[in-house]
Amino acid sequence: MTNTGIVYLVGAGPGAADLITLRALNCLKQADVVLYDHLANEQLLDHAAAAEQIYVGKSCGRHTMPQQEINSLLEQKARAGNTVVRLKGGDPYIFGRGGEEALHLVAAGIPFEVVPGVTAACAAAACTGIPLTHRALSSGVSLITGHVSKNRDELSAIDWRELGGGNTTLVFYMGLGNITTICSQLIAHGRAADTPVAVISSATTAAQRQVITTLEHAANAVRRAALSAPTLIIVGAVVVLQAQLAPQRNNRCGD
Amino acid sequence: MTNTGIVYLVGAGPGAADLITLRALNCLKQADVVLYDHLANEQLLDHAAAAEQIYVGKSCGRHTMPQQEINSLLEQKARAGNTVVRLKGGDPYIFGRGGEEALHLVAAGIPFEVVPGVTAACAAAACTGIPLTHRALSSGVSLITGHVSKNRDELSAIDWRELGGGNTTLVFYMGLGNITTICSQLIAHGRAADTPVAVISSATTAAQRQVITTLEHAANAVRRAALSAPTLIIVGAVVVLQAQLAPQRNNRCGD
Repeated sequence: MTNTGIVYLVGAGPGAADLITLRALNCLKQADVVLYDHLANEQLLDHAAAAEQIYVGKSCGRHTMPQQEINSLLEQKARAGNTVVRLKGGDPYIFGRGGEEALHLVAAGIPFEVVPGVTAACAAAACTGIPLTHRALSSGVSLITGHVSKNRDELSAIDWRELGGGNTTLVFYMGLGNITTICSQLIAHGRAADTPVAVISSATTAAQRQVITTLEHAANAVRRAALSAPTLIIVGAVVVLQAQLAPQRNNRCGD
Repeated sequence: MTNTGIVYLVGAGPGAADLITLRALNCLKQADVVLYDHLANEQLLDHAAAAEQIYVGKSCGRHTMPQQEINSLLEQKARAGNTVVRLKGGDPYIFGRGGEEALHLVAAGIPFEVVPGVTAACAAAACTGIPLTHRALSSGVSLITGHVSKNRDELSAIDWRELGGGNTTLVFYMGLGNITTICSQLIAHGRAADTPVAVISSATTAAQRQVITTLEHAANAVRRAALSAPTLIIVGAVVVLQAQLAPQRNNRCGD
């Protein structure tokens, strides 16, 4: 009988290969099996060159593997005695569905551990020059899913009144397809139409692009610039600091 | 004449020495001077053994160096041609005053770069078993300063109506001293008194301790447990998942 292995749910960080943590790297080096998706930098797989590497990512509406199958695969590979790394973009417990995978493993009796990562909001902030909190401008930051499906229940799960009424920084993950709704809802619920907005595509990678705009003009600006996913949308007064704090030429973001 | 150096504003991560990123580590190895505070793990200084190491931290109300002096020191050391690392706990642009330091450097004409880090909320979530977002429980997470000074203007900067009305996960940084105010304001503005709360002290370090409670009982529970700073306060339905997802004995948090 084989001893059960272990699953590491690992945050790979935001994109750049050197924004992974030492602990995450150590997990990769020990891995027998790596399950990864398109948000994790594929260069990182070089650290697990001898491991079985399985792509389970979703891209652009094409679900290559349903979540339930990912859960089963994690269970099955660990039950066979393997050290399994589930490599996820950003941090596993922020929009990473890490909680769902962890609950499946608990129910299956498989040991697991979660390794936190640099979430995309922090990385996009650093690489565009936007402090997410800043004295006198914002005493907090809200990270919100912008991936609102056509399912009405999910749509209504976002409390626009809560987001529109405050003055904290907002960061929408995966919101490109819904930017029109996001911006118009925020204006309808109290944010000024000229509230500064930054839309950042592929933050920290060589493909990084950004648009600085306002709530009322964001949807058109993004269309004109033809930005593509993955994107983050940062909304709030702190965005104006970008004019002063944008990284200089010698910055290493995007290497 | 000496060429001007550069300042790296570097996120050291949440505490454990292996939760720093490769990029941050690389900065430390290149540093001539390191300015660090008490939130950054001192083991990390071993990576900059040959550098001048200057403690500028604040602890427990004792301000060892005013922010203005830190700014001046960064400027002065860089102007002398040094590669300067300003090592900060967590992420520089989330409650790290990184924006203030960056603005000072821009005004002084000193090149700088920001290296993002794992923010304390993500690390505490991983090490206690609390997904910050989770399908059907929370579609977002708000990171808020809990360090409300006696200054009335700062106190009023927190929009309790915004925080109390929603159902997203809330994470208060540095809120231990104000936990009574935080919990009573949230209840007064709409959160149920029995909303689950986790208070985590020194997350990811060997000294990590935690209390699982509710909004109405949190202040007393924390007093009984005699938790000490730094702490994070996590509020919301996702805290209940901790009962199932709490790390098992083999976890490497706190190593």
